[in-house]
Amino acid sequence: MEAAGRERRRLLLLGTFVQTKADRQLQVMQETAIAVDEQGVIVGIERAQQEGQDAHSAGQRLLGQLGWEAESVDECSSGPEGFFFPGLIDTHVHAAQYANVGLFGKTTLLDWLERYTFPLEASLCDVAKARRMWRACVDRTLAHGTTTAAYYGVVDVEATNALMDECVARGQRALVGRVCMDAKEVNPAWYRDETAAEALEATLRTVEHARRVDAAGALVEPVLTPRFAPSCSMALMEALGKLQREEGLAVQTHLSETREELALVRRLFPDAASYTAVYDAARLLTPRTILAHGIHLGDDEARLIAQRGSSVAHCPCSNTALASGRARVGWLWRHGIAVGLGTDMSGGYSPSVLEAARQALLVSRNLAMDAAANPDAADDFDCNLSVDDVLFLATRGGAIALGLDHKIGAFDLGLQWDAQLIHLDTPEHHSFARGNVDVFGWESCQERVAKWLFNGDDRNTLKVWVQGRLVHSRPVKHDM
Amino acid sequence: MEAAGRERRRLLLLGTFVQTKADRQLQVMQETAIAVDEQGVIVGIERAQQEGQDAHSAGQRLLGQLGWEAESVDECSSGPEGFFFPGLIDTHVHAAQYANVGLFGKTTLLDWLERYTFPLEASLCDVAKARRMWRACVDRTLAHGTTTAAYYGVVDVEATNALMDECVARGQRALVGRVCMDAKEVNPAWYRDETAAEALEATLRTVEHARRVDAAGALVEPVLTPRFAPSCSMALMEALGKLQREEGLAVQTHLSETREELALVRRLFPDAASYTAVYDAARLLTPRTILAHGIHLGDDEARLIAQRGSSVAHCPCSNTALASGRARVGWLWRHGIAVGLGTDMSGGYSPSVLEAARQALLVSRNLAMDAAANPDAADDFDCNLSVDDVLFLATRGGAIALGLDHKIGAFDLGLQWDAQLIHLDTPEHHSFARGNVDVFGWESCQERVAKWLFNGDDRNTLKVWVQGRLVHSRPVKHDM
Repeated sequence: MEAAGRERRRLLLLGTFVQTKADRQLQVMQETAIAVDEQGVIVGIERAQQEGQDAHSAGQRLLGQLGWEAESVDECSSGPEGFFFPGLIDTHVHAAQYANVGLFGKTTLLDWLERYTFPLEASLCDVAKARRMWRACVDRTLAHGTTTAAYYGVVDVEATNALMDECVARGQRALVGRVCMDAKEVNPAWYRDETAAEALEATLRTVEHARRVDAAGALVEPVLTPRFAPSCSMALMEALGKLQREEGLAVQTHLSETREELALVRRLFPDAASYTAVYDAARLLTPRTILAHGIHLGDDEARLIAQRGSSVAHCPCSNTALASGRARVGWLWRHGIAVGLGTDMSGGYSPSVLEAARQALLVSRNLAMDAAANPDAADDFDCNLSVDDVLFLATRGGAIALGLDHKIGAFDLGLQWDAQLIHLDTPEHHSFARGNVDVFGWESCQERVAKWLFNGDDRNTLKVWVQGRLVHSRPVKHDM
Repeated sequence: MEAAGRERRRLLLLGTFVQTKADRQLQVMQETAIAVDEQGVIVGIERAQQEGQDAHSAGQRLLGQLGWEAESVDECSSGPEGFFFPGLIDTHVHAAQYANVGLFGKTTLLDWLERYTFPLEASLCDVAKARRMWRACVDRTLAHGTTTAAYYGVVDVEATNALMDECVARGQRALVGRVCMDAKEVNPAWYRDETAAEALEATLRTVEHARRVDAAGALVEPVLTPRFAPSCSMALMEALGKLQREEGLAVQTHLSETREELALVRRLFPDAASYTAVYDAARLLTPRTILAHGIHLGDDEARLIAQRGSSVAHCPCSNTALASGRARVGWLWRHGIAVGLGTDMSGGYSPSVLEAARQALLVSRNLAMDAAANPDAADDFDCNLSVDDVLFLATRGGAIALGLDHKIGAFDLGLQWDAQLIHLDTPEHHSFARGNVDVFGWESCQERVAKWLFNGDDRNTLKVWVQGRLVHSRPVKHDM
């Protein structure tokens, strides 16, 4: 199977580049040129050296340094109103729930699973239905600039394998996991693994499929996915832990989402010191482990997660919509835990990581209100995330959380060109495709980025690349 | 001056109509016809009477009952995927701040006013600049289905009058207020009224302008707008209270947005029993008074507001973004206070009332978390707003809050046709204009509405009418 945008050409990108640095500060590079080789790797970054120079001259210099002929290169400019931004990284998303975004009524986690989630996931053993869902989900998330997603598939092997096929075909970088859930009490009889052994065997078939469709794991890699502790037997979790050590695979699961879930874990695992300790007992806390939510954690649990090098996927849309709680990103950071963002569709109502970033900022404002009301516990709550912080979470932070920061998340030399071209309109730009952001012309670049964060949507994402390949583009028409 | 869409034609609307009833429940009327006369008034509603009948036959019956010839009528169908919905009502919005949406950094109310807001508002004494802003703001909000807006203009009379002109020209129903602010301490020297008398005189010039451009107040009416108590002298507020009684005008101001503001009010008005009591002393609490925010109110204040028949504009985007607090809509309702929604641009980051509705639901989830954590005070906090509740706030609730429910807010006989046509796409609908909502075909109408609430945007709003006039429409192209 070959990936989208097959032809491998060198790229020369010119104009304004915006990214977050390792210290989470936004960095704006104007009049800059970036060269990307045929493997999709950033091999040159050149900034205009003095006043009056522009990106074009920087680009010419770069071509000279690399010894590249102009005709061997595809050129793309951000234009004066636009900017390049790293592709967004969704560290927690259930592809199977895409059709349910926005549907949760007044449910909270456990009844939401039963009412909305399990029936839809179970129905995807109809692989034709599953393929329709995967196409819709991958198409939609690429349009929103999601270049990497950590997907939960379903229990069904064929359907989960079809999700990997879709990611390879459309060129979206992904971790794809077959959901494991063998506990009799929590999972419905019509949607679960019958035994731990069957769950493990089924998982192995998806790992093999991943290696068949993408032998090098360049784009798609398998991820071990015990749904969450209450839905898994200890035998299953231990077997997955063993497989992880043997194969060095990534792991994803849920942790500490709601208080009802905590009570359930205490009842099901009465000997465990904490929810986090359950996973640790199964040796599932690894440097490649992504734990979704992490809301109601104690200090001991945070220390354990940090010690194991595991990371947290913060899912603000979902956590608020299901009234699960408010995760304390600043507190996690202070414990040394890497944090990324998850849309958590469809607990989260939006396919957009940009929306997740926006809501991460708003959740942090709610924590700031709590801190103001509880000055004694302010350290626990206070973390007023900035525009820069949440865009870091959406890009470089997500890459670190997924253990992929040696490949993606920023515009550093040697990283892959996983990126998007953002365009903002003026109020007078009466294009049919006009987005929801208006720039009046007096905004700084930082202010343009803030406007994009708060009102931007997929209309502002004109082009999306993964590994140097163009995987999404939006025609710009002026027909209104 | 004549309003947009001048030609007055009868309308026959056919298909699915969704609205909220007085009890806040969503009502879906399928296979229904609604007739609107040349004055934009709903004069007939006819539903298919038995199984197998459709909207078309209901429409034919309606034409017969009204004695209307088919050729005297413009017909519009919702289509099977779409539905008509009442126009959205923005009960609190600063038109002058439109250019700043999304810009607030980490500021809270008082420093945000100084850093972002006052400089932009003051600059609009340049009427050409103001007109560009009004055009952008009215155009944008109409595109989002806002058929009625309660606008704050600026201090400058000509600029504020130009906002009225723009609303009349574009056909948006509006209350437009010239901002009054004469206090020396809180307002900058370069942006304020010099004296109460000057503020009153300037206000009168905007009231006269409103009556000149729209003598009957059919579309645009003036609204007295003391900015907020700290920015006004008691003499000015009393003068505005007197003018209100003489002319029966609407009033809008801010109330109890942040704790810092409460402290400021206590210092500036040491003899007042409460923040609310300050306005009551000036006799500004009337049945036509809209109070924005109302977050940190005591029971005595809520009782006073209810007794005076004033209402509250809930502004969830702004309240969270500026970390102002969480307004308790259920608590206000239990006190008998009418509540509408405000975008509160640009404290609020979005021009969309739909986004405000979405955030109202999420703020209520945060209150539900507080209630779960404080069972003793749960009555104060608990108000888990449903999809129906927040769509009520956005339409009928807003109409009641503005004292306009005898004209707008629903599809009742005798009300004006202030409405929008909503369309949702399937995942296979690869139109250039495709919105952010996918319907897969198995959703109930209620679920389609929920999907629209959570992921809908201006792309889903195909047509917008005010008073029976088409004031916005979006071409639907299939060119991708």
